[in-house]
Amino acid sequence: MMPTQEFEAALRAKIDGKTKPLGALGRIETLAAQIARAQHSLAPRMESCRLILFAADHGIAAEGVSAYPPEVTRQMVLNFLAGGAAANVFARQAGMPVTVVDCGVAGPPITDARLVARRIGPGTANARHSPAMTHAGRDAALAAGRELAREGDFDALCLGEMGIGNTSAAALLAAKLTGQPVAGFIGRGTGVDAAGLARKQAVLEAAAARTAPRLAPAEALAEYGGFEIAAMAGAMLGAADARRLVLVDGFIAGAAALMALALEPGLRGNLVFAHRSAEHGHAALLAALGAEPLLDLGLRLGEGSGALLAWPLLRAAAAMLNEMASFESAAVSGPA
Amino acid sequence: MMPTQEFEAALRAKIDGKTKPLGALGRIETLAAQIARAQHSLAPRMESCRLILFAADHGIAAEGVSAYPPEVTRQMVLNFLAGGAAANVFARQAGMPVTVVDCGVAGPPITDARLVARRIGPGTANARHSPAMTHAGRDAALAAGRELAREGDFDALCLGEMGIGNTSAAALLAAKLTGQPVAGFIGRGTGVDAAGLARKQAVLEAAAARTAPRLAPAEALAEYGGFEIAAMAGAMLGAADARRLVLVDGFIAGAAALMALALEPGLRGNLVFAHRSAEHGHAALLAALGAEPLLDLGLRLGEGSGALLAWPLLRAAAAMLNEMASFESAAVSGPA
Repeated sequence: MMPTQEFEAALRAKIDGKTKPLGALGRIETLAAQIARAQHSLAPRMESCRLILFAADHGIAAEGVSAYPPEVTRQMVLNFLAGGAAANVFARQAGMPVTVVDCGVAGPPITDARLVARRIGPGTANARHSPAMTHAGRDAALAAGRELAREGDFDALCLGEMGIGNTSAAALLAAKLTGQPVAGFIGRGTGVDAAGLARKQAVLEAAAARTAPRLAPAEALAEYGGFEIAAMAGAMLGAADARRLVLVDGFIAGAAALMALALEPGLRGNLVFAHRSAEHGHAALLAALGAEPLLDLGLRLGEGSGALLAWPLLRAAAAMLNEMASFESAAVSGPA
Repeated sequence: MMPTQEFEAALRAKIDGKTKPLGALGRIETLAAQIARAQHSLAPRMESCRLILFAADHGIAAEGVSAYPPEVTRQMVLNFLAGGAAANVFARQAGMPVTVVDCGVAGPPITDARLVARRIGPGTANARHSPAMTHAGRDAALAAGRELAREGDFDALCLGEMGIGNTSAAALLAAKLTGQPVAGFIGRGTGVDAAGLARKQAVLEAAAARTAPRLAPAEALAEYGGFEIAAMAGAMLGAADARRLVLVDGFIAGAAALMALALEPGLRGNLVFAHRSAEHGHAALLAALGAEPLLDLGLRLGEGSGALLAWPLLRAAAAMLNEMASFESAAVSGPA
């Protein structure tokens, strides 16, 4: 393997030798460099990507923190399986296979051969009053995600989620990982009105008050996480194991990324932050992550929708590095 | 044809009925609505796109306003034909055909069967001292672009350009169309240093001082335009004739859009502003256009590179409208 300093110099020379003014491709250039580094290759492969969609329910939804009733999680899983959700549509546009994982949807198990069952339980406990999950449940969810993200032959992964109540879990998790007040991470989620937002704030403040302002990562996850959030964090770890890039979607995925980074800071280079969500708390979360996402399209859907829309940029960045002519090869003059 | 009010209501209902919280797809929703309106269809087609790349030289380049020598225009045309430029790479990623048009590259005509020859002359005259082109030349360039953009069977067009010196032409054009001082539209282009920027500013101030602060659109184009800029403006008019959308790239394309809109304000709905360029003058140009582009990736290359990167968002937006399930069809519950 080429030593880091030599690799970096060769990478810089390759990008700067392309037929374009220095730096003129902006973030496509930094993205190409990130891809090259993650694969430790000056000719990285970025051709194939898959979407893994993790679904689970949240006990805290019983507190009325969401605009939608909890049964929507299950209904949306069926919608994913039927190919009708935004994530399916965007994945089809990108020619990307979709894996739907039941991490703990409330009610009886969904019997569908296409669904990957990794049920930890029928939703988490209500984190307003008690830990959301046991340590065993947390570890099982992390392991399930990690294993799924290591499987198969893909260059990158989009991770998505579905779970009514999961902006609440994500906000609590972000607060406990950063030690910041939960208020800064609260938004309208699927669209609560002013009264709903006030209720959500009161519920999350009360839930946060159960424990110390800052918790160890694994503890924070058990106290406030969701099964799908734990599985996403695990999937980020698994993707890094396999030297894959992960396109990190919006607010929920951002909380999972904060969790994964707390467990394994070394995976930073494997994470590509896809978009700036319109969910109010995302700005604070991105600041905590030190992340500047690629897209800013006012999305606040989840499902990995923003990650899917950012995927063509990764392909383009790698193709720039692999296919673009150099000043030398194309006999183009440099600056006068 | 459905009356506008009825069409708008049906469009709103279709978008809001999709299985997602109201407005949760942000700009993808507004983009879908723009596409639907441009085609006056609730099931618009957005499957195929082509890139037309217009190249020409600029007399004002003799004043030393660019970091690169004028022969680069010609060299890059050969690079486009060989498939080695960023625009080629991004177009291939998107499966998009590329048409390269010689609108007036300096030197003898390039003999290559793949090149579309619409040469108005061997580059414009030096706008520092005299009008860049004759009225006949301007009209021929506009007509060439208009005709090319009407041809073929495509849903959308990416327009790109190549021309050493063309940020100078675009800045002068923007100034004369808006009546604002040219200083606000000047940037480093391909990357002039501080001394180069000072020279560029002095040259453009002197060029601008030749005429009144604000000119009629056709006059401004003849005085300061480039053949490729005139052809791009014409192509926008032609795309609108054929009810096609145009992905407007960065600074040069933005000046062409300002020109095209001055000639035909009705084409606004056909223009999708692809990205916010890192070229300094683009912010003022976007403000004059009242445009909020889709992407902000620090690009400043031209060639239609930013337009190409935004194309997948158009496809995704139309697919959202055409393929996503509704709450009713997927039996998903609405807000509680």
